Amino acid sequence: MADRSGALTESQVIARLREIFASSDPRIEVGIGDDAAVVVGAKRQVMTTDMAVEGVHFRTEWSTGFEIGRKVTAANAADILAMGGVPDYLLVAVSLTGSETMEWISDLAHGIKFEADLAGAHVIGGDISRADQVVISIAAIGTAEKPILRSGAKPGDGIYLSSLTGWSAAGLALLKSNSQSTGGPVEKALKEFKSPTIDYGFDATLASSLCDVSDALVIQAAQMAESAEVAFKFDLSKIEKTPEFAELETLANELGADIWQWIFAGGEDHVLLATGLDLSGILVGEVIAGSGIQNLPLGVETSAWRHFN
Amino acid sequence: MADRSGALTESQVIARLREIFASSDPRIEVGIGDDAAVVVGAKRQVMTTDMAVEGVHFRTEWSTGFEIGRKVTAANAADILAMGGVPDYLLVAVSLTGSETMEWISDLAHGIKFEADLAGAHVIGGDISRADQVVISIAAIGTAEKPILRSGAKPGDGIYLSSLTGWSAAGLALLKSNSQSTGGPVEKALKEFKSPTIDYGFDATLASSLCDVSDALVIQAAQMAESAEVAFKFDLSKIEKTPEFAELETLANELGADIWQWIFAGGEDHVLLATGLDLSGILVGEVIAGSGIQNLPLGVETSAWRHFN
Repeated sequence: MADRSGALTESQVIARLREIFASSDPRIEVGIGDDAAVVVGAKRQVMTTDMAVEGVHFRTEWSTGFEIGRKVTAANAADILAMGGVPDYLLVAVSLTGSETMEWISDLAHGIKFEADLAGAHVIGGDISRADQVVISIAAIGTAEKPILRSGAKPGDGIYLSSLTGWSAAGLALLKSNSQSTGGPVEKALKEFKSPTIDYGFDATLASSLCDVSDALVIQAAQMAESAEVAFKFDLSKIEKTPEFAELETLANELGADIWQWIFAGGEDHVLLATGLDLSGILVGEVIAGSGIQNLPLGVETSAWRHFN
Repeated sequence: MADRSGALTESQVIARLREIFASSDPRIEVGIGDDAAVVVGAKRQVMTTDMAVEGVHFRTEWSTGFEIGRKVTAANAADILAMGGVPDYLLVAVSLTGSETMEWISDLAHGIKFEADLAGAHVIGGDISRADQVVISIAAIGTAEKPILRSGAKPGDGIYLSSLTGWSAAGLALLKSNSQSTGGPVEKALKEFKSPTIDYGFDATLASSLCDVSDALVIQAAQMAESAEVAFKFDLSKIEKTPEFAELETLANELGADIWQWIFAGGEDHVLLATGLDLSGILVGEVIAGSGIQNLPLGVETSAWRHFN
């Protein structure tokens, strides 16, 4: 399909994308190709959007198109999960520089499709533009019988992570260090940086509050504590006892990095942070009366003031 | 709010945006601020997304933030209208370069809000990123009792435009020519280029097919004819008799431009193109048996092969 003698045309790209995102879900009455998609909607819906920019959120020299597609889709799916919802539909707007091959574009689309399948979502529309950078903007529309907000934490609740944070930051540190190390933890860190695993199976039904750790654990925990007017008291000894901690620690030691900085301030993990009683996942602390974050590791700060990226 | 000593922080920008986009619509249970918005959905919904890139779709030296905000929102609203739908919700993802002022960002947001109000839609969420260009990606979610597709044209139907196309192309030509002309048609062309008027009042209930002329009249007409397996036969004398044609002609004469090129190949007007019997708007031709486009003005081509922008 690629026009070897010149740039791809929009028609060529759209034809390929319609194949990749074809879906037979009966709720989708009109999919990709008309002015808009038509779906038979659910009663209570959750909607979000997340944009990723080349050079800021991903680098084409570090990640394949497939990995980039997975990562951006995962970020959107995680936001729907973080409301206690299930992702249904995705709208994908992408700007291309014009130098991409049909192979790379297909690879990106297949990554989006792969993660969408994991999430149970369908790509039903999109837009393609020209820009100096690749920019991928996804909107996700999902269903939530009973949305779980950031603000419901109560004293006495446990604080849970669906899995350990810090892996994405570790992967970024490995890439920046040009480390030649191999082995399980190295592979896992690189994989989590390039396309984070979303804990689709995490059962948040009984959570009192819920959030995804897209920025950093300390920032999201501070937001949840503030909005519920409670304090989040972490228990570092509990975190240290998880098998994942030991794995992550080997990497931190090797790179001379601070593991707590990765875990609390790393960001981009898309792990779910929940409060409640007897939840699944890793118990990492307790909600108590008061305000702010307690028992932070030395050197990690709660500053929620950050420049956007 | 702006941090005069440095770049704006994400928190500062989001706080301002929450004020601008505040809504009291009871269907919006959770608006901007959590991981995702929560809405009480309609039964049959239409969803679309449209991305606009600085330097490609708009230029900050030609248009104010307000005008740019209106234009990008209008493009999305028009796609919902073009399905016979009503826009309900907007998700807005924007990348900023970091050199924008809070005033410009607010102006952009107010433009989005202004057009959203005209369209009857609410901004319920978004994302802010950093990039080398301003990129605005909006997803629109609407309701359609009875969606109207591109493919329903039947021989015997009239072909209607909700208003005359070509004004946006005329505005662009004026800007490129550095024309110092003034007067009604000049003002209208510049206005339509900077933020096109959407025909929100156009009644498409009885249309057999419907589309918005975002690319170019000739391209959209060719798509509608092809998908319905009919021919679109234009009647140029009918177009020439409209009062708008005379106004547009004064500009074309002044700039030595081809008015038919503006009308048929200009694009970016977001006028609605419909087929059916006794519709409102301008009757510009007839659907007949056959294929393709008939009676095109000389020099206008039906090529639907175009590079994406």
